Amino acid sequence: MEINHYKSIFLAHLQDQIRIREPKNLYEPIIYILNLEGKRIRPALTLMSCGLFGGNENKALDAALAIEMFHNFSLVHDDIMDAAPIRRGLKTVHEKWNINTGILSGDAMLVWSIQFLETYEGELFKKLSSLFNTTALQICEGQQYDFDFESRQIVTIEEYINMIMLKTAVLLATSLKFGAMIAGASEKDSENIYEYGINLGIAFQLQDDFLDVFGDENFGKQSAGDIIENKKTFLFLKTYELADDIDKLELLNLYSSKKYSKVKIKSVIKLFKKYNILSKTDEEIRHYTAKAIHNISKLSLPVDKKKILEKFAQQLMERRI
Amino acid sequence: MEINHYKSIFLAHLQDQIRIREPKNLYEPIIYILNLEGKRIRPALTLMSCGLFGGNENKALDAALAIEMFHNFSLVHDDIMDAAPIRRGLKTVHEKWNINTGILSGDAMLVWSIQFLETYEGELFKKLSSLFNTTALQICEGQQYDFDFESRQIVTIEEYINMIMLKTAVLLATSLKFGAMIAGASEKDSENIYEYGINLGIAFQLQDDFLDVFGDENFGKQSAGDIIENKKTFLFLKTYELADDIDKLELLNLYSSKKYSKVKIKSVIKLFKKYNILSKTDEEIRHYTAKAIHNISKLSLPVDKKKILEKFAQQLMERRI
Repeated sequence: MEINHYKSIFLAHLQDQIRIREPKNLYEPIIYILNLEGKRIRPALTLMSCGLFGGNENKALDAALAIEMFHNFSLVHDDIMDAAPIRRGLKTVHEKWNINTGILSGDAMLVWSIQFLETYEGELFKKLSSLFNTTALQICEGQQYDFDFESRQIVTIEEYINMIMLKTAVLLATSLKFGAMIAGASEKDSENIYEYGINLGIAFQLQDDFLDVFGDENFGKQSAGDIIENKKTFLFLKTYELADDIDKLELLNLYSSKKYSKVKIKSVIKLFKKYNILSKTDEEIRHYTAKAIHNISKLSLPVDKKKILEKFAQQLMERRI
Repeated sequence: MEINHYKSIFLAHLQDQIRIREPKNLYEPIIYILNLEGKRIRPALTLMSCGLFGGNENKALDAALAIEMFHNFSLVHDDIMDAAPIRRGLKTVHEKWNINTGILSGDAMLVWSIQFLETYEGELFKKLSSLFNTTALQICEGQQYDFDFESRQIVTIEEYINMIMLKTAVLLATSLKFGAMIAGASEKDSENIYEYGINLGIAFQLQDDFLDVFGDENFGKQSAGDIIENKKTFLFLKTYELADDIDKLELLNLYSSKKYSKVKIKSVIKLFKKYNILSKTDEEIRHYTAKAIHNISKLSLPVDKKKILEKFAQQLMERRI
């Protein structure tokens, strides 16, 4: 698969560039989190996009590294804020070290990520930096909306989609646009590949919400963590929207305690199923995937290259982990 | 005083540029910390430096804002890491809101600070960004060394000076160099004003260490907080260096508990005085101030402008708060 090819090129670059420095206590946690097994989708997309638009993929390596470093910065800080002990099967940074280390090493990662863009010159540097900063701030805003929604009883689906767009989709979109910009693609193509990333990112997060509840346990994904944590995901919000008054009340009632309970999980899933949430979510995922595929159709790329982007969208939608 | 003139120009710009945005819970803490009474030395230095090198000070306003925003970001995160409840006489951000808000709003400030540099174009933008990122990473490193020193018994004075250079001096130096760069000063002048800032910053921090213990209580500065916290400041390290074996042991012993004790403070101050630490610290401050003044002598500026920089150095050294 195309994307795995780019993943391995990226990993070689990562190993080459990210070396331990002094003070060790600042940089060791950075090396640690960067070396945790990850899908590396974002940096691979940057390289792939650069290649598709006819650019030299090697020139996109530092931009890919900036994206991956930033993504990992956000994981380190989010894990502190969510008090999450485990990340990719291993201890989170603040758990392995402490909260102060998580904060400070995270800060250093944010700065370091931006430094990787200094590889680029002139107008390209300015454009990459400017998009990167906009994206970074949007991700902070998305994280804040996510927090805000926890304490709000009613969140509209529109607000939810906006939140996941900020929190998840903009970085995927920026990964793709970076590749296009470095390859020297037209403004129009760069914008369309960005929009493709936005729609794909939303579909990706909706799929994540879905898999959290209905994922195949054999793939180690199902946990219903979102139900336990009372997360107002698409599944919850759509069910709430469709539910009659009695079921609305029951749903709110079930989401009023954070205590782990198998009965709660079962009852919530029962309500989800009653309102056909499997097909509703699937519909929504298909809607955004179709939008993404429409974005591809507008690109000035040969058909075989468009097919690669289409295939990638399909695969993301069909993933089970 | 010259510097107060720049402070008020800066404050007007700050009020103009920093407005509340959505999500409110992300931006309110940012507005709060930025509006706490502060000396605004760094942004004022950026404007002053730009003016001294013949530039239009208005062009330096956004660079000054980047510096001040970054400085305040570092305060928000440092206050979490130090568990400090009070900042400039009011509640710290994590105390007024919570730790998660402190982390996330701080992150947003770091990104936002970098965005203010987007005002500048071409090579100037690249040079400002690159210096800013280097400085930001150095400050993270300085903070890490500061942490590391807490758990180390022996820290050399050289290591200490390096730590305060990273943690404090580089931002002062960058503030000055930003002004020079925006004014279009020569490479040599930019470098010398940077070095002036480094030496001034070190003198400034040594003065801070001194005032913490021997400051005039009437100015509300003395607290001996560094002694209570067992901070290995210049005063401690120099005393330890000079002390005989018995006093060395006593000093280490006194610095082994974090419990507040008037007896401890008194005993430490007695040892400081026994080894003439007042004049030793004064000597060190004078050493770095003299270096700063030497840096001024190398600038290609008319005498009256050099005098302004000299006077500023003298005033910083003589401050009692």
